[in-house]
Amino acid sequence: MRTRFQQGLDELRQKLLRMGGLAEQAVDRACQAYRDRDLSRCQLVLENESLINAAEREIDELAFDLLAMQQPMAGDLRFILAVTKINADLERVGDQSVNIAERVMDMVELPAVDLPVDIPRMAAAVSAMVRRALESFVEGKAELAQAVLEMDNVVDRMRDEAFIMLVKTMNERPEATRQALDALLVARNLERVADHATNIAEDVIFWVRGFDVRHNVPDPDSQSQQEIKRT
Amino acid sequence: MRTRFQQGLDELRQKLLRMGGLAEQAVDRACQAYRDRDLSRCQLVLENESLINAAEREIDELAFDLLAMQQPMAGDLRFILAVTKINADLERVGDQSVNIAERVMDMVELPAVDLPVDIPRMAAAVSAMVRRALESFVEGKAELAQAVLEMDNVVDRMRDEAFIMLVKTMNERPEATRQALDALLVARNLERVADHATNIAEDVIFWVRGFDVRHNVPDPDSQSQQEIKRT
Repeated sequence: MRTRFQQGLDELRQKLLRMGGLAEQAVDRACQAYRDRDLSRCQLVLENESLINAAEREIDELAFDLLAMQQPMAGDLRFILAVTKINADLERVGDQSVNIAERVMDMVELPAVDLPVDIPRMAAAVSAMVRRALESFVEGKAELAQAVLEMDNVVDRMRDEAFIMLVKTMNERPEATRQALDALLVARNLERVADHATNIAEDVIFWVRGFDVRHNVPDPDSQSQQEIKRT
Repeated sequence: MRTRFQQGLDELRQKLLRMGGLAEQAVDRACQAYRDRDLSRCQLVLENESLINAAEREIDELAFDLLAMQQPMAGDLRFILAVTKINADLERVGDQSVNIAERVMDMVELPAVDLPVDIPRMAAAVSAMVRRALESFVEGKAELAQAVLEMDNVVDRMRDEAFIMLVKTMNERPEATRQALDALLVARNLERVADHATNIAEDVIFWVRGFDVRHNVPDPDSQSQQEIKRT
């Protein structure tokens, strides 16, 4: 019985990683589509959304079955709950990628204009956050997750800069208003992907710190202290 | 033991309802602040965010404790998982309210202009969705939740209309660009609140249909059939 449960946990981990790969790919494709004004990549992002949604449901069902199958120990319980939360965030990363692809499809219909915003640079920072958040999950390392939280401030700053510069463009070059607005919304979508990466990192920390506590590794951090009280 | 567990479930429900009340209040206050250009209401929304965040953590901790306390039956398990998901959505409703308050704070610093968008009407529709999603949870009624899903299309249409009209404003009245952009972002934030209400309604359906199935109430709906296979 315990072995079947452990196999289930492994399967859950594998499924979440595949889901993470799909979400990462969706963001990267949407951003490449922006850079190259590439409608076929937009189409791929839209098509793959149903795969991501199906993967989300599968993971939720497996998590439910595992919780129903037997009373998990505290660390396994934390792991399963973290997976269901990460799962929801990855699905929303997919949604944001679809939003970006839709903005690109709008832009491609308009004349190309030069805009004072480096979306590819912002996209690279955001992709790195998603990738590292998933790495922190794979390796079960709270330090890696912590680094993701710090990257979020950088992305927020990029978004603020983009906002200021693009509003200026709208005022000075009314003919470029709609393109500037599309770019501004893409920047906001990327900021939201960064927020989801941050949520994932926080869930990894919740899982891992609980795990450490279960193994009696002392940790002076106050959050872990709180968790000791709770478990 | 069972009684303590049942008390815990009641407490979880009460806490989630209080959290729902806070989130609803935040949206309403942010929208009133928009209507009246009222900075003091914006301030209230910002201050109450920490209450919402604290409530989210408390609910997650209680849900965790209940799952760890004993192996819940399928219906209770579904209920607890639905609560943790609804909880996350309510916290994000709070975040969106903060975003709206921030846009209002930006607008109040600019000259008031007439904009071709009825934000109060959109806000009323979105508030109704949140309220009904919470009612469907209180009453455990999938039909009420279903009605929320249908309202989402109306809000999406309002958002699209707002988008078109406000981009037109930006092109025709460059001096009103920033105000129009603020209004457009408020419309997007409201659309996201509607998405969260939709998520909540879906979680209620997941919980309730599972519950019906557990009690052997026949339901020809295909989603319930799927759940029969799973449970």
